[in-house]
Formats: sequence, C-alpha cells, structure tokens
Amino acid sequence: MTRKARKLIFEILETVDNSLGKIFQLSMMTLISLNVLAVILATVESLSSRYSAFFKIFEVFSVAVFTIEYFLRLWSCAADERFESPVTGRVKFALTPLAIVDLLAILPFYLPMLVPFDLRLIRGIRLFRLFRLFKMGRYSRSLKTFGSVLKSKKEDLVMTVFIVLFLLVIASCIMYFAEHGAQPEVFSSIPTAMWWAADTLTTLGYGNIQPITPIGKLLGAVIALLGIGLFALPAGILASGFVEELQKRRTQQTICPHCGNVID
Amino acid sequence: MTRKARKLIFEILETVDNSLGKIFQLSMMTLISLNVLAVILATVESLSSRYSAFFKIFEVFSVAVFTIEYFLRLWSCAADERFESPVTGRVKFALTPLAIVDLLAILPFYLPMLVPFDLRLIRGIRLFRLFRLFKMGRYSRSLKTFGSVLKSKKEDLVMTVFIVLFLLVIASCIMYFAEHGAQPEVFSSIPTAMWWAADTLTTLGYGNIQPITPIGKLLGAVIALLGIGLFALPAGILASGFVEELQKRRTQQTICPHCGNVID
Amino acid sequence: MTRKARKLIFEILETVDNSLGKIFQLSMMTLISLNVLAVILATVESLSSRYSAFFKIFEVFSVAVFTIEYFLRLWSCAADERFESPVTGRVKFALTPLAIVDLLAILPFYLPMLVPFDLRLIRGIRLFRLFRLFKMGRYSRSLKTFGSVLKSKKEDLVMTVFIVLFLLVIASCIMYFAEHGAQPEVFSSIPTAMWWAADTLTTLGYGNIQPITPIGKLLGAVIALLGIGLFALPAGILASGFVEELQKRRTQQTICPHCGNVID
Amino acid sequence: MTRKARKLIFEILETVDNSLGKIFQLSMMTLISLNVLAVILATVESLSSRYSAFFKIFEVFSVAVFTIEYFLRLWSCAADERFESPVTGRVKFALTPLAIVDLLAILPFYLPMLVPFDLRLIRGIRLFRLFRLFKMGRYSRSLKTFGSVLKSKKEDLVMTVFIVLFLLVIASCIMYFAEHGAQPEVFSSIPTAMWWAADTLTTLGYGNIQPITPIGKLLGAVIALLGIGLFALPAGILASGFVEELQKRRTQQTICPHCGNVID
Repeated sequence: MTRKARKLIFEILETVDNSLGKIFQLSMMTLISLNVLAVILATVESLSSRYSAFFKIFEVFSVAVFTIEYFLRLWSCAADERFESPVTGRVKFALTPLAIVDLLAILPFYLPMLVPFDLRLIRGIRLFRLFRLFKMGRYSRSLKTFGSVLKSKKEDLVMTVFIVLFLLVIASCIMYFAEHGAQPEVFSSIPTAMWWAADTLTTLGYGNIQPITPIGKLLGAVIALLGIGLFALPAGILASGFVEELQKRRTQQTICPHCGNVID
Repeated sequence: MTRKARKLIFEILETVDNSLGKIFQLSMMTLISLNVLAVILATVESLSSRYSAFFKIFEVFSVAVFTIEYFLRLWSCAADERFESPVTGRVKFALTPLAIVDLLAILPFYLPMLVPFDLRLIRGIRLFRLFRLFKMGRYSRSLKTFGSVLKSKKEDLVMTVFIVLFLLVIASCIMYFAEHGAQPEVFSSIPTAMWWAADTLTTLGYGNIQPITPIGKLLGAVIALLGIGLFALPAGILASGFVEELQKRRTQQTICPHCGNVID
Repeated sequence: MTRKARKLIFEILETVDNSLGKIFQLSMMTLISLNVLAVILATVESLSSRYSAFFKIFEVFSVAVFTIEYFLRLWSCAADERFESPVTGRVKFALTPLAIVDLLAILPFYLPMLVPFDLRLIRGIRLFRLFRLFKMGRYSRSLKTFGSVLKSKKEDLVMTVFIVLFLLVIASCIMYFAEHGAQPEVFSSIPTAMWWAADTLTTLGYGNIQPITPIGKLLGAVIALLGIGLFALPAGILASGFVEELQKRRTQQTICPHCGNVID
Repeated sequence: MTRKARKLIFEILETVDNSLGKIFQLSMMTLISLNVLAVILATVESLSSRYSAFFKIFEVFSVAVFTIEYFLRLWSCAADERFESPVTGRVKFALTPLAIVDLLAILPFYLPMLVPFDLRLIRGIRLFRLFRLFKMGRYSRSLKTFGSVLKSKKEDLVMTVFIVLFLLVIASCIMYFAEHGAQPEVFSSIPTAMWWAADTLTTLGYGNIQPITPIGKLLGAVIALLGIGLFALPAGILASGFVEELQKRRTQQTICPHCGNVID
C-alpha cells in the first residue's frame, strides 16, 4: 500500500498527464512566481518596512511547502526504476541537477540557523529559487524546439561569441591607442575602452565615454556599423536553424496519400 | 423594398468588392486618420488654444458621422444571415468586437452629457477611435500572412517573451546585488534595477542608471551582449515562419512523382 | 559617319560591355564620389576658407564635365530605337528619370546666373548630384536581387511601416497620458511624446526625454521590448524574401545532367 | 634522420590530427590568450606599476617561445612539398600571410634593439599578436561555413555596405541643412552631421548631438526608423545564406527520380 501511495505521489509530482499533477504544477508555479515577486518587492524599502511581517510569514510558508515538496520527491523517487534502490537510488536522485536546485531553494532558510552567515550572501542564494522556472520548461514543446535549434547551431553560435569577443578586444585596443592621448582620464586603459566597445558594438550608447578626436570618431562610427553585422550573424544562424528544424519535421512525414510512397 | 435598401447599405458598409463600398471605406479611413491627427495636435497648447473652435466643430462632425455609421451598421446587419433575427440578431451584432469598438468611438462624446465624468478619462476613451485602424486590416492580404505567421509561431513567440522576462528578472537581481552597495541611491531596489535591465537588454541605453563597479560593468557588458541574442531569437522565428508560409503556398501544387496525383 | 560616331558615343555612355564604356563609367564614378566628398568637406569652415579657390575650380571643372556628358547623352540618345525621332525622341529622353537627375546635377550652377536665388537652396539642389550614385546600381546584379526581393515583399514591408506608425501613435498617446501630469514640460504634447516613442521603439535611447513615474517606466519598458519585435519583423520578411529569391533561381535551372529531365 | 625529425616537428606544428600537435596547439592558444590579457592589463596603471617585473618576464618568455616557434616553422616547412626547395621554398613560406603574422608578433621586441623607435608605435605592432587568433579558425568547421556563407553573399553584403554609406551621406546632408541654422555650433559641418547620422542609423543614441527644430526631429525620427531596415537587410541576407548552405549540403545526396543517378 505504501508503494501505491508512493507511486501516486510520484505521478502527481513528476508527470503532466495526471490531472492532479497539473493542478500541483500550476499551484507550484504560482507559488514560485509569487516568491520571485516577493524577492523583488522586498528590496523596495517603503514596502519591506511596512509589510515586513507579511513578507516573513510568506517566506516561512513558502519554505515549508518547498521543504515538504523536496522530501516527498526524495521519498517517492523510488517509484522511478532509475532510483529504485532505497539508499543509493535516493542519493543518485539527490544529485540530479533538478534536485540540487530544489535543495538550494530551501537551504538559505535553514543554513543561518546552523552556521553564522553573511546576510547578503543568503539573499543571493535565495535567488536560486528562480531556477525552478527552468523545471517548467521541461513540459513545453516550444522549448524543445529552441533546444534542438540551439544544439544543431551550437558550433556556429559559439563561433559568433568568439567573433564578438575578438571584435570587442580589437575595437577597444584600437580605440585606446586613438583616444588615450586626447582623453587620458576617460580612455585610461584598455579595460575601460572595452566598456566603451561593449557599449558601442551592442548599439547601447550610454554615451558617457565617447571618442572626441576625428580619427577616434571615424573609427567609432566604423565599429558602430560593425555592430549591425553583429546583430545579423546570430539572427541569420537562428533563422536557418528554425527553417532546418521545420524541414526536418516535415521530411519525416511526407507520404503521398495516393500511392503510399514516401517523397523526400 | 426596405430589405433591398438594407442589403445595399450592408454591402456598402461591409464589402470591398462594391465600388461604392470602396469609396465609403476610403472616406472613413481618411476621417479616422484626420481624427487621430486632431487628437494628436489638440494636445499642442499653441494649436489647441488658437484653433479650439475648429477642433470642436471637427469633433462634432466626426461624432455625427460615426454615430450615423454605427446605427446604419446596427440596422443593416440583419442582411447578414448570422444576425437575421430582428432583436437577438442585433444584440449579437452589437456585441461583436468591431461593433463594440465602433460604440466606444462615439460614447466619450455622449457620456459626459449623461454622467459627470473625469475629463482626462474621457480623452483616454477617445483614443479607442484608433482601434478602427484595425478594421482596415481585415481587407489586407498581407496582414493575413502576418496573422498566420504569428499564429503558427505563437508558441515560440510566447516562449521568447518568457525568456525575455526571465532574463530581465535575472539581470536585474544580479545587478542589484552587484551595484546596490556602491550606488544605494541609483540601484535602490530590484524594480529600479529592472528599469536598468530593460534599458540595457533592449540596447536602448538611456544611460542615467549605469553600473560603476568593475564587476557591475563586466556583468553589464555580458547582459548587453545577451541583448543581441534577444534580437536574434524573434527575428529567426519570424524568418522561419515567413519561409514556412511561402512554402505552404507553393506545396499546394505538389505533385507526387510516383503516381502523378496532386498532394495538398 | 555622324551616325556611326553617335552610335559609338552612345555605347560608351550607356553600355558596360564596351571596354571604353567601362573606363568612362569608372572615371565618372570617381568624379561623382569626389564631388560628394567636396560637398561634404566644403561645409567644414576651416577647409572651405583655406581651399576655397580649389573647391571653386573643382566645381567649375565638374560642372563642365557633367554638362558635356549631359549634352552628349542628349545627342547620342537617338541611337536608341526608343528615342529615334530627332525632336520628340530627345524630349522623351530628357524626361526619363535618369536624364532629369543629370540635368538637376548641373542646373544649380547655371541657375543663379539667370535668376537671383537663395544660396542655401542652391546648395540643397547641388545634393541631387548624389542621386547619380543610383545610376551605377543599374549595372549591379546584386541590386537587382535587392529590387526583386523588395518588390516581392512590397506588401509585407508596407504593412510593417503601417504597424510601426501605428505603434508609434499608440505608444506616444499612452505615454502622454501617463507622464503629462508628472512632467508637463517634458511630455508637453503628443507630438513631443512621439519623439520619445521614436527614440524608444528604434532602441536609440538619446535619453533626454524619459518617463519618471512608475507606471510610465513600466509602459516604457514594455514599449522598448516591443521595439525588439519591430526589428524582427522586417528581418524575417527580408530573410524569407531572399530565401524565396534563391529558390526561384534554382528551380529555373535544376536539370538532371544524366538524363536531361527537369527536376522540380 | 634530420628529415624524420623535421617531418615530426612539421606535423606537430601544422596538423591537428596529431595528438602531440593538439597539445601544442592548445598550449600556444593559452599563451596567446595570456599575451592578449597581458597587453590589456598592462594598460591599467595600478597593475603595470606594481607588477611591471612580472609583465617584463612574461614578455621575454613569450617572445622566446614565439621566436623558437617561428624558426622551427621556418626550418620544418620544407617537409611540405610546396616549400621543399631549401632556400626559395623557405622564402616562399616566410611570405605566406600566416608566417608574416608570426614574424610581426616577435618583431616589436627586437626592433627597438636595432633602431630607435617610438614606444607607442611598438605597442601598436604588438597587437598583431592578436591576429594569431585567426590561425585557430583554420581548424574550425564552423568558421568554414561562415566563410562560404560570406563568400556566396559577398556581392549582397558589399551592396549593403554601399547602401549604408549612401544612407549615411544622405542623412547627414539632409540633417546639416535642417539643423545648421538652429544649432550652428552642434551641426557645424556635414562631417559632424555624419557622426550624428552614424549614431542614429546604428541606433546607438549617444545623444550629445540631437536635432532640436521640429523638421529636424521629424527627419531624425524617419532616419532612426530607416535604421531598423538597416539591421534587417544583413540579417535577411545572412539568413538566406545559411539556409542555402545547409540546403547545399543536403542536396549533395539528391538523386534524380527519372534515372536514379546522384546529382552533385
């Protein structure tokens, strides 16, 4: 009978076909969203001082729910054949990325009770709760498409990142040599010039660091125009990735309904 | 005979094949465009004070035309078999989205005569006239393509919105923890940091909120570079959507090479 | 014999296969580029005052060349069967867009000799010389591809412009109502708010007009994020246009080299 | 025996299949990356003054390694049949682009020993070491795809650059005539206006040069909106290039349905 209960709870916790599971998923997602909202709003001083009691109660309630959820998952995981063994199976489950995220979501609440801790760090760890949002992604077909597009284009995208970094280094070095003489305070070093290069190549344009010499402005304009190409590269790669994806799906299925032959 | 007149008016109001209907459409579009222009220009003080009489007369004229149009639509809708029944058919028609938009376009003129009202709210409601622009869209083949592309890619685009929001939350939380110590006034709370994150991820770059610590600048540059990917994702999705659309149109003529039959 | 000379000059002026024509094209392109450069540099006070004599000589030389070119074109155009008739053919040729551009390029030099004229306007007209750059485009296969892509996607791109304008109007109206109370000086009217909306939707981010109320900032962030979609729309349309173009070219040519059958 | 050693060293230096070669490649890449980092960090005054001894030692060590590498390449190149001849083969090798880059990477260290030299120029030359990063590219399949996409779309991309330059010139000329009267200091000449045009067309938005007249703002908004199209053009071209690339790879297995032969 325990086995049956364990299996039922496992199905509620882990599957989406189960209607009880869907309700559970939705309420957990709502709680996580509210937690994120609470983390965000608690940093607004006027709110955190006035509603501090409310924030604390909500925190305790959330951690209680997340703790129960964690232990239920740990207990019921044995229903999965991969984690069948009572002890080693559970250790194996506890070391899966999702289970670690679950643990990290509740740990910052219990940790200061055990060890004295820097409060600011705790808040940082608390943000790990946000990672739970990734869990939801598992059930989305759309995210699967994204995943397979990114996977098939991984090499190209990594190369794009290298090209971006390369441009960033070259642009900042050039600009440092062009502007350091005229603005020794502003373009004081290459790392400072890299801040300018990132600002310009991404077409952000904060504008507090700017070239002032004619040659610096000319180079700056050229680098800004290269920024346009920077946007085109990943857009083109992803576009071809999505096109490839939908062609893959189609070619798996095209069968002539009249004669039954597959058309490639 | 009333029936015939009703049918004629219905055709003028609702169809585009009718040449009288085309003239009606064009004049209504012109009137709506001029109304939008009037709403915009009336907020320029120098114009609104000098030409206030003209704005008022144009307002009364427009509302008169829109009111007549609304009642003609309400009366002639019975020519459509969906709204044939004299009373329930008309109620049904009055509750269609387009009819509600039509009503909202004239209501702000009559409402203050009946109920005392906040003037500012009335101006806001008056903007609903802009929604009439959507009506024109119905007759454009291009907007149909847009619609079917957006529809077929709905899931991917919704996921993109989620990813954007996710990045926005993560970026602002990270930046808050990185910069709050150095700039407690500027990065006073996570909602404030979200304004910075939106400014940076969209590559806007207003620049009045900026990281100043080295780690903050490094993270800021990484987040700005992620902004490039943010542009690539919807561009890639829409590109594949448009490609898919035109392939769909072409493959309606696909002929199986094995048996010679057309496959739709 | 005049006929032969006329034909030769026509071929030099109008065709690219002719090797003399190629040399002529290149020298004209260089002269036009130098003219553009001269127009640009002449506005730099330190240069225009020091080298005013040089600028004047170059101006006279260029106009002389362009004038001779214009009259040679007008004379030799009769070699083309479309403009064969001595008088009406030449008038017809003089009214082609390219001939009008040619005339506009020399007119500002002669006009002030005939009619007293505002000097500033003359400078403006002189810019028409830039339009000569378009002429080169005629010989580029690449520009033809661009042209046919833009043509096949004309409807979609026009619709995109409409959507951009629609968003611009809606965004500026919303922002005016949200911020006018808090910043009556900055968001003084909807046209002013439209400057903000253009600044934000294009992700420019000059930043001298910004929302300051919480609701204004929230709406501003949403509008800025919509700006991302604005970039994706034309990118997706053009991407599908270019894909379509290359598919069109391929399907015209795919012939099996082994059996000679066309494969679609 | 020298021949065998030469061949072994050649294989270590030039091929990636060799496992010793892989280790060599990786260590060289690490050294190059550390060199780039050292160049960047040496410009930060607080670091360069404190760790000047360390920077100098690392410099000497790097140049020693790069010098040995250079001479080993020069010696072993004879193992390649293209450079077999003892003298002319080596001169030929020394004149290949990659060998020149290798030489330029060590030259700035030795040059000041021979000739008195401007220190700033030396630093500039030292940046040529960055070009070594390109060498790695040779082994990446992804960069090959990029190369063939850029090659097949070269004409279109060059045309895009021309269109960008054309828009830049037109936009700056128009803006100069619109704003010069109102802001003679800010829009002092067309080259200054070009800085504004680059700032606006790339959607950078530094914002220190801005139109203030109504007509200037209207034109500025139109130019900013054209900037959106500027991003769409290369994105669309590259997207179709990548799609074409993957179709090319797939069609290498195209079999003619009429005769059964493979078509390449």
